[in-house]
Amino acid sequence: MTLPPLLQQPHHDSGPVHVPQPPRHLGDEVLLRLWVPEGYPLSAAAVRTVVDGEISSRVLGPVEQVPGGAWWEARLTLHNPVQPYRFVLSCDPQEAARADVPAYAWLTAAGLVPWDVSDARDFRLTIHEHPEWVADAVVYQIFPDRFARSTGAPVDPDGRPQVEDLPEWAEPRAWHEEPAVRGDITGRQLYGGDLDGIIEHLDHVASLGADTVYLTPIFPAGSVHRYDATTFDRVDPLLGGDEALVRLSRALHERGMRLILDLTTNHTGAGHEWFRTAQADPASVEAGFYLFTHHPDGYASWLDVPSLPKLDHRSAPLRARMYEGPGSVVARWLDAPVEADGWRIDVANMTGRHGAVDLAHEVARSVRRTLDETARRTGRPTWLVAEHGHDATGDLVGDGWHGTMNYAGITRPLWTWLAADGSDLNWLGLPMSVPRLPGQALAHTLSEYNAELSWPARLCSQNLLSSHDTPRLRTLAGDREVHHVGLTALAALPGAPTLFAGEELGAEGTTGEHSRTPMPWSALAAAERTGRDTPGVDTGTLAHTRTMLGLRRQLPALRRGGLRLIHVEEDAVTLLRTHPEGDVLVHLARAAHTAVTLELSALPGAPSARLLHAHGAVTADPVSGSVTLRAGGPGGAVLCLERPLP
Amino acid sequence: MTLPPLLQQPHHDSGPVHVPQPPRHLGDEVLLRLWVPEGYPLSAAAVRTVVDGEISSRVLGPVEQVPGGAWWEARLTLHNPVQPYRFVLSCDPQEAARADVPAYAWLTAAGLVPWDVSDARDFRLTIHEHPEWVADAVVYQIFPDRFARSTGAPVDPDGRPQVEDLPEWAEPRAWHEEPAVRGDITGRQLYGGDLDGIIEHLDHVASLGADTVYLTPIFPAGSVHRYDATTFDRVDPLLGGDEALVRLSRALHERGMRLILDLTTNHTGAGHEWFRTAQADPASVEAGFYLFTHHPDGYASWLDVPSLPKLDHRSAPLRARMYEGPGSVVARWLDAPVEADGWRIDVANMTGRHGAVDLAHEVARSVRRTLDETARRTGRPTWLVAEHGHDATGDLVGDGWHGTMNYAGITRPLWTWLAADGSDLNWLGLPMSVPRLPGQALAHTLSEYNAELSWPARLCSQNLLSSHDTPRLRTLAGDREVHHVGLTALAALPGAPTLFAGEELGAEGTTGEHSRTPMPWSALAAAERTGRDTPGVDTGTLAHTRTMLGLRRQLPALRRGGLRLIHVEEDAVTLLRTHPEGDVLVHLARAAHTAVTLELSALPGAPSARLLHAHGAVTADPVSGSVTLRAGGPGGAVLCLERPLP
Repeated sequence: MTLPPLLQQPHHDSGPVHVPQPPRHLGDEVLLRLWVPEGYPLSAAAVRTVVDGEISSRVLGPVEQVPGGAWWEARLTLHNPVQPYRFVLSCDPQEAARADVPAYAWLTAAGLVPWDVSDARDFRLTIHEHPEWVADAVVYQIFPDRFARSTGAPVDPDGRPQVEDLPEWAEPRAWHEEPAVRGDITGRQLYGGDLDGIIEHLDHVASLGADTVYLTPIFPAGSVHRYDATTFDRVDPLLGGDEALVRLSRALHERGMRLILDLTTNHTGAGHEWFRTAQADPASVEAGFYLFTHHPDGYASWLDVPSLPKLDHRSAPLRARMYEGPGSVVARWLDAPVEADGWRIDVANMTGRHGAVDLAHEVARSVRRTLDETARRTGRPTWLVAEHGHDATGDLVGDGWHGTMNYAGITRPLWTWLAADGSDLNWLGLPMSVPRLPGQALAHTLSEYNAELSWPARLCSQNLLSSHDTPRLRTLAGDREVHHVGLTALAALPGAPTLFAGEELGAEGTTGEHSRTPMPWSALAAAERTGRDTPGVDTGTLAHTRTMLGLRRQLPALRRGGLRLIHVEEDAVTLLRTHPEGDVLVHLARAAHTAVTLELSALPGAPSARLLHAHGAVTADPVSGSVTLRAGGPGGAVLCLERPLP
Repeated sequence: MTLPPLLQQPHHDSGPVHVPQPPRHLGDEVLLRLWVPEGYPLSAAAVRTVVDGEISSRVLGPVEQVPGGAWWEARLTLHNPVQPYRFVLSCDPQEAARADVPAYAWLTAAGLVPWDVSDARDFRLTIHEHPEWVADAVVYQIFPDRFARSTGAPVDPDGRPQVEDLPEWAEPRAWHEEPAVRGDITGRQLYGGDLDGIIEHLDHVASLGADTVYLTPIFPAGSVHRYDATTFDRVDPLLGGDEALVRLSRALHERGMRLILDLTTNHTGAGHEWFRTAQADPASVEAGFYLFTHHPDGYASWLDVPSLPKLDHRSAPLRARMYEGPGSVVARWLDAPVEADGWRIDVANMTGRHGAVDLAHEVARSVRRTLDETARRTGRPTWLVAEHGHDATGDLVGDGWHGTMNYAGITRPLWTWLAADGSDLNWLGLPMSVPRLPGQALAHTLSEYNAELSWPARLCSQNLLSSHDTPRLRTLAGDREVHHVGLTALAALPGAPTLFAGEELGAEGTTGEHSRTPMPWSALAAAERTGRDTPGVDTGTLAHTRTMLGLRRQLPALRRGGLRLIHVEEDAVTLLRTHPEGDVLVHLARAAHTAVTLELSALPGAPSARLLHAHGAVTADPVSGSVTLRAGGPGGAVLCLERPLP
C-alpha cells in the first residue's frame, strides 16, 4: 500500500494547466489533462463522474509525449451545476509490482489513493459564477478602532480620543496604551481609529501589495468591535459616519483597490433598532425577526450572550429587510454611493441554524443572489466570504458563499506546523494548546480538507495567519523567521492572502483581543525613515511581506495556478503552483533539514529551476534537471521552472 | 506519523457499549464512552461536536479502571437532529514518543487520525427514527420470474409456461434453460415464477435464517424484470395478481417474516398508464409527470433508454399520486390488505435529479414521511431502502432514505478483497475488470466510506455479496471457500445481510442477467434428501449459510454491536463486534497467512476467547488472554469473548 514519491506520481489539479477551460454552462465540454511521469506503468485510465446521481466514465488516452512523461486526456460534458470527478488508474499487476506503484488507484483532489473512496474528495467542476478578480486579490484586514486616527481628530491631554456624544459604554484610551485582553472591558476600550485615518494610510496598505481592504463592522454598536450593531442603516459617527465611508471607498477605487464590509447575519446587538421594536411590541413585524422563548426577555442569542439576540431567518420580512433584493441592507451598501465590493459575513457558520431549523444554505443562496443582481445592475462583481472557524466544506460547494475565512484549511494546518514546541496558546476553541505536528500532518490536512471544497471556493477564500479573533502567528511561532515561513506560505497557496493589520510588522498577540493592539504608526514612520527596527516594527518582516506579495502579484502561477505538493517531510514542504505561463516551486522549511534534491525531470517538459528569492536559512541550488534545497534553519525559497529550449 | 497496532489504540464506536443510550429527542443527554487501553499515555481528551454550526467541546475524564485499561466518559447534549462528534486525544509529547503513539490525534468513525480532519467522518448522533426491527433482519432477495413456479401452474410439453393473455413481449422458457445474458431478449425470457411459488418455498427461506423477503417489482410491465411498470395499481397477473400478493404477505406475517416491495421512482415504463395519457394529451395532468423536450416523442429517460421515461418530481400531482399521503402508491401497498413492511426504491440515486434540478432529498424525505404516517396509523414501522450503486452518503444522513443497498461500503470492498487474481468480470460500471486488493484496502474503504454514514443508516442498509444486477461473488472469487469467507463477512458486518436467491447454493453468475438463472428446486430437494451436492447445489455452501446466519441470529453483537477492526494484513482481517451481552471476534482469511496472535488483554475486561465456529482452513487457538489464528488457506472463525470471573 505504499505510493511512489510525489514527483513520480501521476498528477491532475484544478488549475489552468490541467483544466484549460473551466465550464461556464450546462452542456459545456471540458478538457481534463492528466500528467503521467515516465516510468509510471499506467496501462489504462478513466475519469469517473456522477451525472444526475449515476456514475459515468470516460476512458483517457495518451495524447502527447513530452520530455518527462506523457499527457493523457479526456473530455467530460457538464450535466449538473456541480459535477464531481476523479480518475481511476490501472496498471498491469506485474509491471506495477516492478515499478513499486499500486496496480489500482484513484487520483482524487487529495492525491493518489490505492483503495476505493467516497466522492467527498473528488475534483469538482461548477458553473456557479465566482468573482474573477478575487483570484488576484490580496486582502488587508482592518479593525477600524485600532488602525488609525485621522489627523486632527481631537484628543485630551492624555492622548485619549475626545468625542462628542461619547457612548455610555466607551472607555477612551490613548493610542500607545496596551489593551486589556480579558473581561468586559475588552469591548469598551475606545482608541478612536476612524475611516479617514484609514485613507491616510492607504499608501502603506498598497506598499505591501494588498489591493483589497476588509473592514470589520462599521455600523453603530454597543462595543468597539461593533459585532453588536444597533442599526445596519448608517455608519458609526465615531468612525466618521456615512460620508467617511464614501470617501474611503472612493479613495480605494481611485487606486484600483477594493472594499469589503462586514455584516452579522446571525444576530444583532440587543440595542439594535429592530430588537428594541421587537421587545417593545410583541405584535410588531420585528418581533418575528428574533427567537423569543418568553417575550420580552427570553430569547435565543449567540452562544447565550444576551446582548447578541439571534435572528430567525424563517421570517420573510427579515429576509427582505436584510438581504433580499435591491432595497435590502446587503444591496444598499454595494450600490452607490458606497459601492462596496463585497461582504464578509460574520458567524456565517451559525446563521439560520437553531435546533431543528437549518436555513444556513438558503440564507447564503439568497445573499449571493442579491450580490449577483447587484453585479448585473452595476457591472461590478462582488465577493461573498463567510466567517467559518472549522469545517465549512458543506456550506461552500454549490451556490452558497463564494468562499470562507479558511481557518480550517489554511490557518489551522499552518499553525500546527509552525507552532513553537510547547506553545501554551489556546488551540482555537479546543480545550488544549496548539500542538506542533510534522510536515506530513500539514500536507494531509492541506490536501484532504481543501479537496472537499470546489476549486473556485478555494480561490475565493481568505487565507489568514492570524485575525482579530486569534493569537498572532508571530507569538505562536515564537520566532521571526518561522513567521516569515508562514508569510511565504500565504503568498504561495491558492486563496486570497489576508493580512490582519500588523501582520506585516511582526505584531504579537496571545489572544484575539491582544491582537487588536493599535498600529504603531510613529514607530513605523521612524523605521521606514531609518531602515532600522523600532518598537513594534520589524523592518525585516515588512520587507519580507512586500517581497513575497510582490512575487505573488508578479507570478500568475502563485495567484491562479493549480496546487501540487512535491515533497513532504517533518520540517520541510515543497509545493508547485502549476500554470501555463510557468510553474513556480516554493520550498518551506520550519527548521534545519538535510539537503533535498528534487528531480524536476519527472515534471512536464523536464524543466529547469531558476531561483527568484530565498530567505532565512534556506538555499536553493538549481542545476539542469534538478534542484537541491538546503536549510540550516527556518526559511523558504521561490523558484520559477523553465522548459529547456527544444 | 505511525499509529500503534489497532488493539492498542483508544476506541469508540456507535454500538451500545460506547453509546449506551442513543438520543431520541432534542435536548437528550448522551453518554459517550471511550476505551483507553493500558499503556496508551493519554493525558487529556475532549469530545468535539458542532452545535448550530459552531464547535463545542466537552472534556473527558477517566471514570473506571478495569483489567486492560480504563473507560473515559463525557456527556453530550443533542441540540440538532443530526449532530457530529469526534474525540481529540492529547498525550505529553515525551511520553507519546516513548510509547510510540501520536501526541495529538483525532478519533473519528474511521479510526485514529494524527492530523486535522474535516467533519465528514465524524461519528453522528441522530434523532431521526429508524425501524428498530431492521437491525435484526436477514433479507432474502427474490426476482419473482426466476424463483419458483407454483405447483400446478400450466406448462406446455416443453415445460414452458402456458399463460392466458401472454404479453406480446414474453418468450416462455423452460425452468432448466439457461437464460441468454445479452441483447434485447434478456428482459423477455419468461420462466413463469409466481408469488404462490414463493409461498411454497418459504420453508427454505426460513431455514437459512432469513426473515425478510425483498421482491423485485411485481407490477405489470413490459419485461420480466418489471422495472418498466405499466401501472403501480395492481400486481401482475403473470405473478398471480393482487390476491397472490395478499396470500404471500399473510404467509410471511404468519411466520413472523416480513415483505419488502420494489418501487421505481425515477421512471416508469413507456407503456405506463400515466405515460400513455401524457403522450396522448399534452394538456393532461400526467403530461406534467414527465420531462418532455418535444411532445410526444422527445422526453428524458433513464440513461436515454426510450422505454423508461423519467419522472419529474417538480409535479405536485405526481408527488401526491406516487408517495404523498395515505392514498399514494407508497402508502397503499403498506396498508391492508397487503401490509408490506417497506419499500426498496429503484434508481433512488437518480430520482429527482436532472440537470440543474436536484430534488432527490426532497423525494426521499416525502416518501419517508408517508412511511412514518403509515406506521403511526398501523403500528407497523416500515423500512425504506434506496438503490444506490456508488456514494450514497450524502443521501442517507438525516431524514432521507433509512438505508441503501450498500454496494459502495460493503459489496465493492469485499469484492476487491475476495476477487480471484486476474478475474475478468466487469468492475461494476467502471471500464475495467475487478481489481484484487490487499486487506488494508478492504479495511480502509470499510472504515472510511461507512464512517460517512450515520450508524442507523448502516444498520438499515442491505449488505450484499451479489444481486440481480451484478455478477455472483462465487464466480468472481472462483473458489468455494473464498465465497464462504464472503458469507461470513456478511453475517459479521453491521447492516442487514441480504442474500440474492441462489447465493446460499453457490450459484454462479458472470453478469446481472446471468445471475438471474432460475432456482434449481429439484436439484435442491435431491441434495437435501441425500446430503450430497447436485448440479447447481453446493450443500456445503448451504450449510455454511445456515450456520453463519444462525450465529448472527443467536448473537446480539453480530446484529447490533459496534464495529472495531483489530487486525488487518494483506490476506487476513479480524474484527470485533462490541456489545454489552458479549463481544464477538470474527476472523476472515482469504488465503493462507502466517499465524497471528492477538493480545486480548488490551480489550475492556481483558477477556478470553471461546471458539464458536471455524470453517475452511482456519483454526483458532484461544488461550488465556490471547488467541492465535492460523490459516492454511481461505476460511474464517467466530469467537465469543468472555470476561474472566473477578
